[in-house]
Amino acid sequence: MVVELICVGTEILLGNIVNTNGAYLAEKCAGLGLSCYFQTVVGDNAERLSQVLRTALGRADIVILSGGLGPTEDDLTKETAAKVCGKPLYLHEPSKKAIEAFFAQKGLEPTDNNWKQAMLPEGAIVLANRNGTAPGVILETEEARVILLPGPPNELYPMFEESVAPYLESLNSQVICSTTVKICGVGESKAETMVKDLIDAQTNPTIATYAKTGEVHIRVTAGAGDKKEAMKLIKPMVKELKARFGNHVYTTEEETTLEKSVADLLLANHLTVTCAESCTGGLLSARLVNVPGISEVYKFGMVTYSNKVKRRFLGVKKSTLQKHGAVSEKTAEEMAKGAALMSKADVAVSITGIAGPDGGTEEKPVGLVYMACYVKGKVTVKKCQFSGNRGKIRESAVSAALTLMRSCILEYFSKVTFGKKES
Amino acid sequence: MVVELICVGTEILLGNIVNTNGAYLAEKCAGLGLSCYFQTVVGDNAERLSQVLRTALGRADIVILSGGLGPTEDDLTKETAAKVCGKPLYLHEPSKKAIEAFFAQKGLEPTDNNWKQAMLPEGAIVLANRNGTAPGVILETEEARVILLPGPPNELYPMFEESVAPYLESLNSQVICSTTVKICGVGESKAETMVKDLIDAQTNPTIATYAKTGEVHIRVTAGAGDKKEAMKLIKPMVKELKARFGNHVYTTEEETTLEKSVADLLLANHLTVTCAESCTGGLLSARLVNVPGISEVYKFGMVTYSNKVKRRFLGVKKSTLQKHGAVSEKTAEEMAKGAALMSKADVAVSITGIAGPDGGTEEKPVGLVYMACYVKGKVTVKKCQFSGNRGKIRESAVSAALTLMRSCILEYFSKVTFGKKES
Repeated sequence: MVVELICVGTEILLGNIVNTNGAYLAEKCAGLGLSCYFQTVVGDNAERLSQVLRTALGRADIVILSGGLGPTEDDLTKETAAKVCGKPLYLHEPSKKAIEAFFAQKGLEPTDNNWKQAMLPEGAIVLANRNGTAPGVILETEEARVILLPGPPNELYPMFEESVAPYLESLNSQVICSTTVKICGVGESKAETMVKDLIDAQTNPTIATYAKTGEVHIRVTAGAGDKKEAMKLIKPMVKELKARFGNHVYTTEEETTLEKSVADLLLANHLTVTCAESCTGGLLSARLVNVPGISEVYKFGMVTYSNKVKRRFLGVKKSTLQKHGAVSEKTAEEMAKGAALMSKADVAVSITGIAGPDGGTEEKPVGLVYMACYVKGKVTVKKCQFSGNRGKIRESAVSAALTLMRSCILEYFSKVTFGKKES
Repeated sequence: MVVELICVGTEILLGNIVNTNGAYLAEKCAGLGLSCYFQTVVGDNAERLSQVLRTALGRADIVILSGGLGPTEDDLTKETAAKVCGKPLYLHEPSKKAIEAFFAQKGLEPTDNNWKQAMLPEGAIVLANRNGTAPGVILETEEARVILLPGPPNELYPMFEESVAPYLESLNSQVICSTTVKICGVGESKAETMVKDLIDAQTNPTIATYAKTGEVHIRVTAGAGDKKEAMKLIKPMVKELKARFGNHVYTTEEETTLEKSVADLLLANHLTVTCAESCTGGLLSARLVNVPGISEVYKFGMVTYSNKVKRRFLGVKKSTLQKHGAVSEKTAEEMAKGAALMSKADVAVSITGIAGPDGGTEEKPVGLVYMACYVKGKVTVKKCQFSGNRGKIRESAVSAALTLMRSCILEYFSKVTFGKKES
């Protein structure tokens, strides 16, 4: 089945906001096995919206519109769609009651224009809105199914998950399932080369790669008669990907981020952790602290930006800074060791580099970053050369540091538990 | 004049990436005074792209396409646009030479398919690409002007700024200029109320408000015969906004961020700064460190997540933590004082709060954040209640802390310099 997306809003046309609803809906629809060939953005204008909607009705089975369901006169998506589909509006009592209840809960009175939101097209399937006053609407016409959703993401996302996804699934004779294999420490083009044969030969399941900063995600999607059948198709492909990428696969769970996988490793092994950051200025700590529950293992971190502070708080030697410079393997190593000593943490990570735009030299160009990871006495140092602007270099450094932490902790336990490598 | 945007790329249709090029081009075109009524996303498919382009040619004066100029067979934007416009392709020697030079500089050999990028439509205006191998193209047809730009943002943005913006400006009989008044410490709805009369009465200049996390930006845009005339129209409105928002206006410069305005204050007054963060986990430091040149004043920062660390490194009293808790006015105050003492900085900022999702109580709900700013001996504490998820609460706290820093430093100097308020 073919879906088409129409995002309504003058603020998108003016570039005031990025069209994240479009990306959200596109990804969800792709995950449900729907084909999407066109996305359109149009303003709050009845004539132009009608034009776009009529075009979409002529070429898609399902048209999803988001935005323009608010209470003001500017909001006219519902009125326009109802007119194009030939469905008059009527006052939908349950929606009116829901709006009253929504305001009552907040101790507020609805204004007159809120009742506009309870006016719904005849014959519509009504989708409850837990987080706002605009109900969602599904109109089943002869040409296509038209789905109207509110624009605010905190209303749109739950409504899609709870009402629209099950509805779309029910239209499909087959169930679509997917699993994402998340990989760190392998570059995008290398990862693509490693799965090119699988992509070329794909039928069901299909596989697609997504490049993220310092990560590659591979989504495996299958369609089948039921969920169990679909997962049965997915499983061997996930197994194959795990075999190809080995320890670089950090999770196959949708909600697990790279920092969460590192935090889980620390928590499961009761390892406390600290960070000593220079060019990243606290970003690594901030990413770890974004994981709820991290306080069990993360107690303390430092941003050691100046050489003096690197010496005073981390014990980096004056001779090291003089001989090798602040951005060097040796400084990174001493920073990590010093941070571990200072904080008494089991794991200590340091980052020192040149984020630019200035400060680069022929020998040490902008983007050069050294990082070190100390795990219970052993330090591993890594040299990286990143590209991009200051922000991009810092983000890349943080992802690389998380990847380094993960591999150092895994290596430590592979030795400790199995005595595999060193004695 | 009316512009229409077409972003080409299957990865946008699948929701793999957010269409930031669309937002970038939309904002730039709005800034140039062009009206945009439609944006379309379409995949790398000749038939569907032709269909979308023909529709756009029929309703716009200028059509800008981005993406699909790469060297592979999948990339067919240029071939399709040339066909729709009836312009055959030919080998453009200067572009071929530019591609050779681009590869030579990187010490690489072009592959055979790179020459495809030097094949350009007859009669095209060619736009040089400093950052890649795909030249941009302007086709002037009877129906409309068609502009083809590469998809990667690091190629698209400079090409737009350097070549496309001047071209579009030359088409306009009038020059469009704008100034953004950036405001901190005033809520979105309050700011909107404060300028509602100006918005209702607007003609030339127009004014528009943009809500950002912890900030509001007001853009004043005017059209006139030349830049000087346009700025003459803008100036009184900017003056009026400055009068209304007073010290809350932190800049009117496009490239100045809130953290840069704080950094500039610190640098200009030779004030060193430190941060002691709990729930924000390093985000405040990271934002300050994102300002190039900050190393002059920012030497050291701490993430003090546990109570023990707050006591050990910041000297927060055991009795304070027991009596008031870690999330309290008193703890925030002692954290800032302790951070100043420990780091010997002139300015010290602390943040302690409950970012959630767990840890909230009736008395201290999720989103409650205390922050303190120490300036040369004087501490100001602020209590905030934020909403949203963990990430949003942390971002809001950082913006509020920057706003607090700014007002405390300004207040310090107003006293020191003019002896206005306290003696």
